[in-house]
Amino acid sequence: MVNFRKNIQKMQGYVPGEQPPSGAQVIKLNTNENPYPPSPEVMRLLLTFEADWLRRYPQPDAMLVREAAAEVYGVPVDCIMAANGSDEMLAILARAFLDSGSKVAYPAPTYSLYTNLAEMQDADVVEIPYNEDYDLPVQELLEVQANLTFVCSPNNPSGTLAANSDLEQLAAGLQGVLVIDEAYCDFAEQNALELVLRHENVIVLRTLSKGYSLAGLRLGLGIAAPELLAGLAKIKDSYNVDAFALRLGAAALRDQAWMRAQATEIKLGREELATALTNLGCKVWPSQANFLMITPPNSDAGSLYRHLREHGIIVRYWDEPRLVDKMRITVGSEDENQVLLTELKELLRS
Amino acid sequence: MVNFRKNIQKMQGYVPGEQPPSGAQVIKLNTNENPYPPSPEVMRLLLTFEADWLRRYPQPDAMLVREAAAEVYGVPVDCIMAANGSDEMLAILARAFLDSGSKVAYPAPTYSLYTNLAEMQDADVVEIPYNEDYDLPVQELLEVQANLTFVCSPNNPSGTLAANSDLEQLAAGLQGVLVIDEAYCDFAEQNALELVLRHENVIVLRTLSKGYSLAGLRLGLGIAAPELLAGLAKIKDSYNVDAFALRLGAAALRDQAWMRAQATEIKLGREELATALTNLGCKVWPSQANFLMITPPNSDAGSLYRHLREHGIIVRYWDEPRLVDKMRITVGSEDENQVLLTELKELLRS
Repeated sequence: MVNFRKNIQKMQGYVPGEQPPSGAQVIKLNTNENPYPPSPEVMRLLLTFEADWLRRYPQPDAMLVREAAAEVYGVPVDCIMAANGSDEMLAILARAFLDSGSKVAYPAPTYSLYTNLAEMQDADVVEIPYNEDYDLPVQELLEVQANLTFVCSPNNPSGTLAANSDLEQLAAGLQGVLVIDEAYCDFAEQNALELVLRHENVIVLRTLSKGYSLAGLRLGLGIAAPELLAGLAKIKDSYNVDAFALRLGAAALRDQAWMRAQATEIKLGREELATALTNLGCKVWPSQANFLMITPPNSDAGSLYRHLREHGIIVRYWDEPRLVDKMRITVGSEDENQVLLTELKELLRS
Repeated sequence: MVNFRKNIQKMQGYVPGEQPPSGAQVIKLNTNENPYPPSPEVMRLLLTFEADWLRRYPQPDAMLVREAAAEVYGVPVDCIMAANGSDEMLAILARAFLDSGSKVAYPAPTYSLYTNLAEMQDADVVEIPYNEDYDLPVQELLEVQANLTFVCSPNNPSGTLAANSDLEQLAAGLQGVLVIDEAYCDFAEQNALELVLRHENVIVLRTLSKGYSLAGLRLGLGIAAPELLAGLAKIKDSYNVDAFALRLGAAALRDQAWMRAQATEIKLGREELATALTNLGCKVWPSQANFLMITPPNSDAGSLYRHLREHGIIVRYWDEPRLVDKMRITVGSEDENQVLLTELKELLRS
């Protein structure tokens, strides 16, 4: 018998969305991947990738990709940190600010990894329930005064966006650190990056997994004041960002035109899908992400999820109190969206 | 002012070896990279890498590379876990077993990341000094009965190997977990993998950074009983191993002939270098790794390090009590070793 820490023994661990085997004949609308390929610049760079870049350790400061991010975001390179996906940025933040008895707060439902990371640090979790419209519960979060407050915006799984004025009020009133997780901001009308320049306790997280269609590359970025990032850098592994993420990530970031063109397609698809689902009697929350949260007409999301699964369409469903009547559907390609709608029409009619 | 945990505020963070810019005219013998390129199979696979592998999230269970490792190591796939470098395996182990007041033990000097990881978890460090011959201090480590005991074998920076009988005695007598960090075992005459099958509290770590010449890829492996790995899996990020490490890692592992051929070259170079350095009056510890720890004739390793640096040769030197008279030299290609020896002859004569 091996003696894990008690909090680790107790916890369940995060359960990622189903990953069907490569080549499986399914329409995969469950993990918010981009339906379009990454920038052609990324694939071109792969053809001339040098063996020496693999033989050597990568840059510990990830400067190649931070420089590209600094150009694109218009912030100094010292305000940018890179990690093995934004999940790693989240884990580093938890390790930096949380220990036994610390408090973590976030509005819920949201990305459930926040809970797992708090459990790993043996911290106490305070969940503030979102209202039906998913307005940010600013006052309630301020009252908690947590060591670490997470706001996912656009929020996963609702797709709803927090207003910058609300986030700014939160940042100004919190003693602890405010993490604004903007994994989905490439599909939104607005982001909160400007808050980083005015609040030393704010960190904004970005990822190349969604807008840039590079979920397989693992590259996340944290944007914050240099003092905050210097503390986080003590925790990260020296070589947490590999030779591919450094170079392909930089190429993808610099091809903004490609990213924006695909994001525009996805936003169009999202609006068409939202209208069609509403016409089918679903409740659809207003989404600024590449997915939609819906409640089907009979509120039985579980059986609809299983029926879709039987017809080769995978969406995300959580069998838990606050989400049992809801499902989250990734916006796919035009074809995928059509197949989904055709199936849904059948299923909701029968 | 942002409030980091006190232990994080206090700690310094790991300082990786110098990484000169790509294309710099230096002979880099400071971070134990392989002088030869990775398997041609790896480079071939890159040319047919599919955009869809990047678009999609990678396998959360990293099965592609675990299957390859299971074949090569001759252990069940459930006894293997993959991570973003063996540094990540080490960090996950620290997070699983250490909290405030826990004890970490290791013989020293060794890989200094162990200290940093203990500091991050606010654990107490007990260093047992190695004797001049770097024999494993089994009794002293047993007396500590730490929650986590690290043994690097072959040891970094000495290159010396722990005897399996000593490791087995340690494993049998420890209540806590014994981590055998075998980053350099591809250059050694023996490894301790068999201990995993007999002791549920042992985990052996491997990396593709050294023998496989893939330091830029970031792939580390943990080999242990399934129960131990199941606990560690709760802590790892879902997608910690990217699409490249999954596929290129598997290809590299399966090309054992390539790895062994390069390792044989390096071992030959190591023995030649050891003889030449001994003839120059250096004390050279017997190394089973791809580097040599030496004390120069006048014991002034610091000025020798700086002189080599001025002549474009970077080796590793630590300005700290136990190591101040020593340096660690990575075994390079035959040409690199010759240039090093020529410079050393000059410097040690003047």
